[in-house]
Amino acid sequence: MNEASGGPTASRLRVRRHPERGAYDAETVRSIVDAGLICHLGYATDAGPVVLPTLYGRDGDTVYFHGSPAAGMFRHADPTVDVCLTITLVDGFVLARSLFSHSMNYRSVAIFGKAERVEDKDEQLRGLRAVTEHLVPGRWDEARQPDEDEMRQTAVYRISLEKASAKVRTGGPKDDPEDISLDVWAGVVPVSIVTGQPVPAPELPSGTIPSEAVRILAGKHRA
Amino acid sequence: MNEASGGPTASRLRVRRHPERGAYDAETVRSIVDAGLICHLGYATDAGPVVLPTLYGRDGDTVYFHGSPAAGMFRHADPTVDVCLTITLVDGFVLARSLFSHSMNYRSVAIFGKAERVEDKDEQLRGLRAVTEHLVPGRWDEARQPDEDEMRQTAVYRISLEKASAKVRTGGPKDDPEDISLDVWAGVVPVSIVTGQPVPAPELPSGTIPSEAVRILAGKHRA
Repeated sequence: MNEASGGPTASRLRVRRHPERGAYDAETVRSIVDAGLICHLGYATDAGPVVLPTLYGRDGDTVYFHGSPAAGMFRHADPTVDVCLTITLVDGFVLARSLFSHSMNYRSVAIFGKAERVEDKDEQLRGLRAVTEHLVPGRWDEARQPDEDEMRQTAVYRISLEKASAKVRTGGPKDDPEDISLDVWAGVVPVSIVTGQPVPAPELPSGTIPSEAVRILAGKHRA
Repeated sequence: MNEASGGPTASRLRVRRHPERGAYDAETVRSIVDAGLICHLGYATDAGPVVLPTLYGRDGDTVYFHGSPAAGMFRHADPTVDVCLTITLVDGFVLARSLFSHSMNYRSVAIFGKAERVEDKDEQLRGLRAVTEHLVPGRWDEARQPDEDEMRQTAVYRISLEKASAKVRTGGPKDDPEDISLDVWAGVVPVSIVTGQPVPAPELPSGTIPSEAVRILAGKHRA
């Protein structure tokens, strides 16, 4: 995660504009990956680039995601395909006196590399567990485990965090000095993701108490 | 927005898996574009695909975004580059009795096509206004307008909504019938984006009242 020079990967990794927003240490990368909700997965096809929203989860320095073997994703790219998997959290609108200095507070990680199909059954389960636990910690042990037929219908992919770059903006607006005295409100409007109260499935016996994982998840700020 | 067959673009547009989640009508596409916060922009480079979070705005059936002319983006692709611009809103975690049937409620639009650099000055301003107003309605007229030097430092791009496809999942979990009676809580935990109370810039004279656009934006559920 600390590549700094040379080669085509490095050229994708470098944070070109606003270098002060680049942050490459592994802890920053992992914390953003863990705080994120979904990722956007990009890859090239003969018809042009495709970017899809996808669920993911982290286990150590490996990120897992899944898809259907029958789906369009990676159909022509067995067993590896070059991807960029990007995770972004929006933290606030930054309102400056000048329109030009308006900005966004955010944390983002872009992971570059080959997505590999996971063939080992134990690792497939570990990957799916990471995806579930990423979104709803504790859920894996509450629900019915996947059977063999369901595992056959699920393609699990893995990508390493080795080539990842983080970009973070925090703080208030940075207006030019001559704009500071303008009569324009300036500051930050915070943005966050919240979970609401659980809505039970209609067939659930009335009065069923939400499980522990659901109670922990519900009604809180996620990031 | 209603392409249905033939050609490489159509193959990117088709919603392959869960065709019931595909929704191609223009109104659905526009409403998701308007509800979204940021987009993820994907394009190919010699070093592989890149996916970046970017601000955007809509004006009619055109989506605008901007960057720095000096930034890596599109450096080698003048005046057009094939991109996929994807906007996703997460609406809920869908918790089923089986892990296999766990899902996410979401609304997503993928826009395919050529991103064109906007050269006309009036359209550049229109595009920047669309980006600002998308995030903070009313803000464009409150803040200092961009001067010529700032406009030179801003590259404005445009992409048409003509080739866009929407994908939407709503509702509760869809467990297999034999799983319905399992003793596992099932349902949906809603997810939404909220804005908090405005944090004024430190140099702002104390007691400065937030502007109208800021008051409208602050402290509400966005989508």
